[in-house]
Amino acid sequence: MKRAAPLALIVLAAMIALFWRGSTPAGKSVVSLLITGGTVVTMDESGTVLSNGAVAIDGATIVAVGAAGDLDARYSARDRIDARGQIVMPGLVNTHTHAPMVLFRGLADDMALMDWLTQYIFPAEKATVSPEFVRVGTRLAALEMIESDTTTYADMYYFEEVIAEATKSAGLRAMLGQTIIRFPVADAATPEEALNRAGAFLREWANDELIVPAVAPHAPYTLTPETLKSARALANTYSAPMLIHLAETRDEVDTIAKERQASPAMYLDSLGLWNGRSLAAHAVWVDDADMTMLAARGVGLSHNPESNMKLASGAAPVAAWLTHGIRAGLGTDGAASNNDLDMFEAMRTAALLQKHASGDPRALPARQALEMATRRGAAALGLDGKIGTLQAGKLADVITVSTSSARQTPMFDPLSHLVYVTRGTDVRTTVVNGRVLMREGRVLTLDRVTVIKEANAMAEKVRAAVSKGAGQ
Amino acid sequence: MKRAAPLALIVLAAMIALFWRGSTPAGKSVVSLLITGGTVVTMDESGTVLSNGAVAIDGATIVAVGAAGDLDARYSARDRIDARGQIVMPGLVNTHTHAPMVLFRGLADDMALMDWLTQYIFPAEKATVSPEFVRVGTRLAALEMIESDTTTYADMYYFEEVIAEATKSAGLRAMLGQTIIRFPVADAATPEEALNRAGAFLREWANDELIVPAVAPHAPYTLTPETLKSARALANTYSAPMLIHLAETRDEVDTIAKERQASPAMYLDSLGLWNGRSLAAHAVWVDDADMTMLAARGVGLSHNPESNMKLASGAAPVAAWLTHGIRAGLGTDGAASNNDLDMFEAMRTAALLQKHASGDPRALPARQALEMATRRGAAALGLDGKIGTLQAGKLADVITVSTSSARQTPMFDPLSHLVYVTRGTDVRTTVVNGRVLMREGRVLTLDRVTVIKEANAMAEKVRAAVSKGAGQ
Repeated sequence: MKRAAPLALIVLAAMIALFWRGSTPAGKSVVSLLITGGTVVTMDESGTVLSNGAVAIDGATIVAVGAAGDLDARYSARDRIDARGQIVMPGLVNTHTHAPMVLFRGLADDMALMDWLTQYIFPAEKATVSPEFVRVGTRLAALEMIESDTTTYADMYYFEEVIAEATKSAGLRAMLGQTIIRFPVADAATPEEALNRAGAFLREWANDELIVPAVAPHAPYTLTPETLKSARALANTYSAPMLIHLAETRDEVDTIAKERQASPAMYLDSLGLWNGRSLAAHAVWVDDADMTMLAARGVGLSHNPESNMKLASGAAPVAAWLTHGIRAGLGTDGAASNNDLDMFEAMRTAALLQKHASGDPRALPARQALEMATRRGAAALGLDGKIGTLQAGKLADVITVSTSSARQTPMFDPLSHLVYVTRGTDVRTTVVNGRVLMREGRVLTLDRVTVIKEANAMAEKVRAAVSKGAGQ
Repeated sequence: MKRAAPLALIVLAAMIALFWRGSTPAGKSVVSLLITGGTVVTMDESGTVLSNGAVAIDGATIVAVGAAGDLDARYSARDRIDARGQIVMPGLVNTHTHAPMVLFRGLADDMALMDWLTQYIFPAEKATVSPEFVRVGTRLAALEMIESDTTTYADMYYFEEVIAEATKSAGLRAMLGQTIIRFPVADAATPEEALNRAGAFLREWANDELIVPAVAPHAPYTLTPETLKSARALANTYSAPMLIHLAETRDEVDTIAKERQASPAMYLDSLGLWNGRSLAAHAVWVDDADMTMLAARGVGLSHNPESNMKLASGAAPVAAWLTHGIRAGLGTDGAASNNDLDMFEAMRTAALLQKHASGDPRALPARQALEMATRRGAAALGLDGKIGTLQAGKLADVITVSTSSARQTPMFDPLSHLVYVTRGTDVRTTVVNGRVLMREGRVLTLDRVTVIKEANAMAEKVRAAVSKGAGQ
């Protein structure tokens, strides 16, 4: 009897411990959000896809990705999202846009580039771009991005500090580049003034949780070599990224060849522009030597297939970017030349355009297009340590995508469906930095009626400016 | 006083008449359906767009298109659709698809054409295509088309009589071509048997209100000259249209050049194949002489930009088709190579591809892409007297499109928005032949749960067939 008593006590204690752990929340780790029950497309290096998976999020961070049953057993969540019948995936990364230009969406299409710029875009920008314009436009763009698929975007525009405020308030993540250009523009009369603004912007937004401030010299052909070098130096002073347009059109290549006896990419390299974190948009006209150099310098490139097709700029050699080991992302460009910010469309168009341009239907398969919109896009921005995949330790930028439409039936392969038949309108949930920005299709951080009303009022000013410009 | 009395009576009578006419239904014409309050994009020859317009429909026919106030005053309607804040336009015309192939959607992508056909599509078709497969697939395709934007489609497949039944039951309009091909296929062991089936199909479905039966010899390279001529003769016996694939790939052009010393278009002309109502799909590889001849013969052509890009077949010279005066429509092709049936995507991709392929951003402007999806597409099918525009006397095939999303804000030009930012998911109402098939996003003629469940069950058979085929 003396020896039985301790044994009974041990068994009892063990039973209590098991009961405690298995059936009460106190035995589980408490997390802030559990997304459970969907097909989890992690976009990790090994292409892990979990049917009936789950993602556990605590605060801003993903703490676990695994089987739904397993995570349900391990975590007690303060908030839950039921993703059954949906795909759960990393939020998409738009590596190039000009957010406030949504206010010029469809203002003019189907025109030669210079007519479009000089008759519509420049007069409209001259007459309307102001802090208020930028605020209203960014809120509209943020609403569109949250309603569709995007959780991080890279931007180049004016009054970037206003864009930062509006973006942070909407809850999106962004890399925002204050534009520097040779001409007088809305927020700076000279490139020097623009550089000063950019310096102030970098200081003001340093170390923000959502916003990465950047310097955005416009393009090799719109700045002097001295200003280009100053922009790079400024970025490096604050360890900030530099965003730039590069080799978008054949005209640009011809101009730089004539003036600098080099390709745009090599000309900028000769100025030391790639000595630091860099993202270049378009790179339609790059040759093997350019690509080898850009890969060696670690430059991120942003492919914008819809804008390139609409403006007839050419087809960037994206398959070759990838074989050169370039950090390659996807972008929409501004809505004035797209005409929307839907990254699912960008993926699909990228895949189709590479096949068409190369004559090879195997070019840019669905998986690669998806990688460019997630993991590779994050790498192009230098944010691959933080976002772009669903993995424990990454920041919690997640979307859920409905797959219940006739258009998505049947589904043999979720990756094929994400690229070839999914639209931004299929997205039901958007989470950024662990915060739910859209739930069941309803945006929580912006009042959509107000945002759209303000945008329509601002559009009237755009319309008036263009009519006036056309009459001159 | 004697003269005052009649005057007072006349005034009183006039007042009563005015009151009567203005305020009671008895003074108005009664119609079956009034769609009122939207921006009416008629797609007529002069490009009429009415803000706050209306469309009055009686039975199968449009009886009036005009200002909402005017039509409200003239008509009393048994049913009304409030289209305020929406665009009201002709339903879209998909001039080329293989409806049941939605069951192979995303089965295999990103492959060389012959691998895709021999490893996936042919084994899957061999093992699964049956009347039941075709019925289930057509119902899924019809659900997708009604949920998106299409009111008329042209089809080439097997068991076309089953497709006709399912299409009519769903309420869609279609031109359906019974396939004739050299190889043994699911519904015919020989081309002779296929011709007999086609004859029976033409007789059975003659004079149907919604279905136009047709003969569909597959392509110049999959039939003997004799069978091609027999197919044309059969069509002409019943005054039926002929549907055919034409000059889709460079390989086809090379094959026909070698065997027949002519282009595919000219080879078929030498056989007299264009002597009668004809619709040819793809026509990617046609030269000036081909186009001049096809225009003279009144052949309708169907451009399928997404399928052509995905399979890397090339870019059809659509801008040149139009300058040659060819009847030019748009199509999606089957969902195995698209991967959906959304005609808004087809429009957008067509506009982008022409700009890219020609190097001219002015190529195929929004208005022309829209015309190809409506009026010109109807003309390609020889149905332009009946459908393709919103005009009194035309059959009532109408859709309404929501424009309230952030993605569609602001709207400077409805035509630009329809081509560059609208998706099938924006469509709220679908009317065919005066019958409402979808109201407020809800399909009325098909039970979507059953349709999707049956499609998923059939997809399991497809999956099994392909795994088995891959294992051989």
